[in-house]
Amino acid sequence: MNVDGTPYRTLWLAEPGCVRIIDQAQLPHRFAFLDLRTPEDMCAAIRRMNLRGAGLIGAAAAWGVYLAALRHADAPDFDARMRAEADALLATRPTAKNLEWAVRRMERALAPCLSPTERRDVAGRAAQEISDEDADFGRRMGQHGLALIREIAARNGGRPVNVLTHCNAGWLGFIDYGSALAPAYAAFDAGIPLHVWVDETRPRNQGASLTAWELGHHGVPHTLVPDNAGGHLMQHGKVDLVFVGSDRVTANGDVANKIGTYLKALAARDNRVPFYAVFPSSTIDWDLADGVREIPIEQRDPDEVRTATGWDEEAGRVATVRLCPPATPAANYGFDVTPARLVTGLVTERGIAPATREGLRALYADLHAP
Amino acid sequence: MNVDGTPYRTLWLAEPGCVRIIDQAQLPHRFAFLDLRTPEDMCAAIRRMNLRGAGLIGAAAAWGVYLAALRHADAPDFDARMRAEADALLATRPTAKNLEWAVRRMERALAPCLSPTERRDVAGRAAQEISDEDADFGRRMGQHGLALIREIAARNGGRPVNVLTHCNAGWLGFIDYGSALAPAYAAFDAGIPLHVWVDETRPRNQGASLTAWELGHHGVPHTLVPDNAGGHLMQHGKVDLVFVGSDRVTANGDVANKIGTYLKALAARDNRVPFYAVFPSSTIDWDLADGVREIPIEQRDPDEVRTATGWDEEAGRVATVRLCPPATPAANYGFDVTPARLVTGLVTERGIAPATREGLRALYADLHAP
Repeated sequence: MNVDGTPYRTLWLAEPGCVRIIDQAQLPHRFAFLDLRTPEDMCAAIRRMNLRGAGLIGAAAAWGVYLAALRHADAPDFDARMRAEADALLATRPTAKNLEWAVRRMERALAPCLSPTERRDVAGRAAQEISDEDADFGRRMGQHGLALIREIAARNGGRPVNVLTHCNAGWLGFIDYGSALAPAYAAFDAGIPLHVWVDETRPRNQGASLTAWELGHHGVPHTLVPDNAGGHLMQHGKVDLVFVGSDRVTANGDVANKIGTYLKALAARDNRVPFYAVFPSSTIDWDLADGVREIPIEQRDPDEVRTATGWDEEAGRVATVRLCPPATPAANYGFDVTPARLVTGLVTERGIAPATREGLRALYADLHAP
Repeated sequence: MNVDGTPYRTLWLAEPGCVRIIDQAQLPHRFAFLDLRTPEDMCAAIRRMNLRGAGLIGAAAAWGVYLAALRHADAPDFDARMRAEADALLATRPTAKNLEWAVRRMERALAPCLSPTERRDVAGRAAQEISDEDADFGRRMGQHGLALIREIAARNGGRPVNVLTHCNAGWLGFIDYGSALAPAYAAFDAGIPLHVWVDETRPRNQGASLTAWELGHHGVPHTLVPDNAGGHLMQHGKVDLVFVGSDRVTANGDVANKIGTYLKALAARDNRVPFYAVFPSSTIDWDLADGVREIPIEQRDPDEVRTATGWDEEAGRVATVRLCPPATPAANYGFDVTPARLVTGLVTERGIAPATREGLRALYADLHAP
């Protein structure tokens, strides 16, 4: 998508052996890049959240495997070394399914008996394929979601369609286009009047820092609200539909996403507002059924809850401020699970399915031979 | 309640004509007092939230009327002048019922034909009576809520009772004891094992800055969580009951409280967690029925959403940081309304009622002669 008129992806191969990313840890206060040259660089970038988002974590892990393949291509114990590198990548973030999916796909690409040169080539091509597919899937999800926005726009008689979103499942969370925001971009680009309510998404504020930033740079009308506001907005008819992303979807349609998503799904149900999860098929965990019980939920540093980071105008720098007394303990669960019963539909690169086992299987019948 | 072993109230008459308050705008980083000597001082303190909370706003408004009575006691147009002062106090915060309730009670006390000396005396006595009653009602609400905690403790077999609360309805929100936290203090003081989940309560973070501070200073075990976490905690059995305060309750039991309360009520219902609103009778608006439609919701400065304020360790001072891009617009609704159907019960100074018109009327039959 565009940053001040220039099209960008979130991650690209700058030169052989050098993966360049938009450094999201510096947004929205500074638009800067970060060069990653080793698998350790990539693990650190994922763990420190210089890049984040379901799709982007997947693509980044693929490029991590590529960097590992460059390093170990000549080693006689290539497979063993690559397994260790893969394990390190898999350990960076536990909830996102896309990460595991991408690493396994890279492993399959590198599984045949290959020469050192072939290993380097295959790894680069496979990682690029995952990147391109992620961007293409974003575009497709946007088109499928656009149909839902069009329907509402047709009923609204010129009143802007009000979308609410939580966290950042925009293009910054993928290689391009995004998942939850892809329909909003598609609608905006198609000239449909549209407004996005942006949950700030504590504790890391990825709504305030990333979603507001990317919508603003693309020109999409939006308003930042506290995570507490969505219920009130829905009670008063100010939300036409909710689009959220996902980090892992079970085979029966339970949706893990940034903590707080479940609360918005409950409010949507209580106010008859359609609630859609938008994600590529790489997010689906076909092995899990009960999301609340089975999806591992990352617990992060409590200091993220105890503090907030932003721009200190007075000091002219980014600062971190503590919001609570010095000794206050905090808990920091990264995700929650929205049960399928609260989800109006699942939007994937192949179309829109009901949030049921049958719905998902019908879209992906080829992956599930009877 | 205690601050490092010394008992405090949130507001007291330091000397004739001087109302002293704990300056809550400086908490949790500095424990300091503020002296208010004029009605304008009081209006500014309410508007700038040097003091806040349903009960405390009510008592503060009563003391504002007292300061006005001192000023105008000798004026021949005393009544007209007092009406103007009352209007200014009423305009400071639109949602809290207690404010109007306290101003009207002061007006009734000053309505008879009184001498200048009597006006001063009556105003002081009436304001002190409202303060003392507020503290006494807090103590009573604590005892009624304690019974609910005892029931759960008896079933828990030694496991601490987990209470979740939103915003600050502790002793800082009243003259003493508080509403939602009063049962927690009562249980703690009675030796019942207890733990409080404290919602940080964006945008002003009164959970992180005030509730965590007062629980910590009294010694009650607690953990700070983002507003997004409550649903996840309830899904995983980590919450035994929810206690929230209220700024206005309609005659049929709809509960206006800090924005985000409604989302927690939805999660409580979805997970069969008891959800109680705790408030003194001064919070009840007997004239309203449909809270979602009828209760006026304060809209505050969008900059409260765009920023966070806290302690900058590096700079050694309180700092305000901007969380979003410079041009991002924001909306700041102060309260939401939880429909009575989601409320397990209403805890008042007189006992516990079902959240229905009949339930409330039964507790306050003397106010509603047939």
